Amino acid sequence: MCELLGMSANVPTDITFSMAGFLQRGGATGPHRDGWGVAFYEDEGYREFKDPHPSINSPVARLILDYPIKSRIVISHIRQANVGQINLGNTHPFSRELWGRHWCYAHNGQLAGFREALSLGFYQPTGHTDSEWAFCWLLSRIREAFPQPPENPEALQQLIHESCETLRSLGVFNLLFSDSEYLYAYCSTKLAHITRRAPFGPALLKDTELKVDFAACTTPQDVVSVLATEPLTTNEDWTIMATGELVVFRDGELVARRTSHTVTSN
Amino acid sequence: MCELLGMSANVPTDITFSMAGFLQRGGATGPHRDGWGVAFYEDEGYREFKDPHPSINSPVARLILDYPIKSRIVISHIRQANVGQINLGNTHPFSRELWGRHWCYAHNGQLAGFREALSLGFYQPTGHTDSEWAFCWLLSRIREAFPQPPENPEALQQLIHESCETLRSLGVFNLLFSDSEYLYAYCSTKLAHITRRAPFGPALLKDTELKVDFAACTTPQDVVSVLATEPLTTNEDWTIMATGELVVFRDGELVARRTSHTVTSN
Repeated sequence: MCELLGMSANVPTDITFSMAGFLQRGGATGPHRDGWGVAFYEDEGYREFKDPHPSINSPVARLILDYPIKSRIVISHIRQANVGQINLGNTHPFSRELWGRHWCYAHNGQLAGFREALSLGFYQPTGHTDSEWAFCWLLSRIREAFPQPPENPEALQQLIHESCETLRSLGVFNLLFSDSEYLYAYCSTKLAHITRRAPFGPALLKDTELKVDFAACTTPQDVVSVLATEPLTTNEDWTIMATGELVVFRDGELVARRTSHTVTSN
Repeated sequence: MCELLGMSANVPTDITFSMAGFLQRGGATGPHRDGWGVAFYEDEGYREFKDPHPSINSPVARLILDYPIKSRIVISHIRQANVGQINLGNTHPFSRELWGRHWCYAHNGQLAGFREALSLGFYQPTGHTDSEWAFCWLLSRIREAFPQPPENPEALQQLIHESCETLRSLGVFNLLFSDSEYLYAYCSTKLAHITRRAPFGPALLKDTELKVDFAACTTPQDVVSVLATEPLTTNEDWTIMATGELVVFRDGELVARRTSHTVTSN
């Protein structure tokens, strides 16, 4: 299994604090030693940093912690390999272009019989994981159903949710996924989220001795949501997601939520 | 204008020495202060590092110089913006997936009337440069002509060369381009290359006081070719490319060459 970390914010936000705790799980407080990666959406740009080594002693991880990158959306993953060797080609997140946008994807879990169950279309995997195969299948389905960006996001959310349910039927499928505007999170077994807004208070990391007072580094208008496989802080109330639940964030706010049989939008 | 740096090698090779000189041109010995990036092909994997800041004082550039990454193919670019703002979305290299392979592209030059002259197909730009537009056009043409990898590489080389000639008719088009196996280089105005093999000797950088003795860090079987907008060393004989010339490297060796009207293969 692996661990996921995501962020959606309404202002360019530095995720160094959360990353400092999360990256400890790649070899220190967690066993996920088989590589890690992070993707940042900054203005209209997109960049990834990946390393096939444990995050706890990765020079690239040290850079990320020392060089705060302010971004609107972040997706990060630390890997404990099951399908596919430990190498750069199998390191998450994965990305492809659709509609002139960068789409980013990271998966925690394991899928059985994925090659037979999931017919590929436009996109082909470059590595050997079940995860990247499922990503190519998912994005091919979206491209086929929506050759252009849909005017109403609900039809796309429905397709993503249905596709995630199909993937969950093959095993364990916890997902972070973004088209550069929305951050989608689907829970199969384990995913939690929290939205921070004014009045901001202090937060205390679970995985390393680090405390931050968000009030000192935010404005009253800031809204920042963070998602993680397990809550990253000990003094805040995280929402634990249910099996089969899809949540959608934009600009830091939860804008839609779907469960296995019901739909809620706000 | 911008500057290009490329490498093709028959063994995983660390390009730190060449990068140390090249990155000086991003604000120290050259005026290319508008961002930089580098792509590494490692085994079956691919990763990019990009920064929209001058390479001479980029923390990401310092990482690359301190953390030698051994790879088979490298493409790097330092930018002096002409079309498109200075931001991450307009920072080279650009990449897309075709045939389950990462394709990487970096361009030096400027193209006029590109939106009218180059109809896009499967791939769409995510940023606002003439360069990325031309990349999407080129890769869409390849995908259309070769839905599967061609058995004979010559037909593909011919398509790439013809496409480059079309692009050169719109302005200045110096190119580095790779499908993860071959490194293609096309010269419109300025590009040079050198192939190093046994017996290896010392090399002296032009842009900074650094000397390396390749004999101390290679085996007699190693073959490494380096390409750059201008020669990087002062004591070696670089081959200056001609206008309209395409060269193709695989595993460090020059395997094909096309000029505006003639073809040479070896």
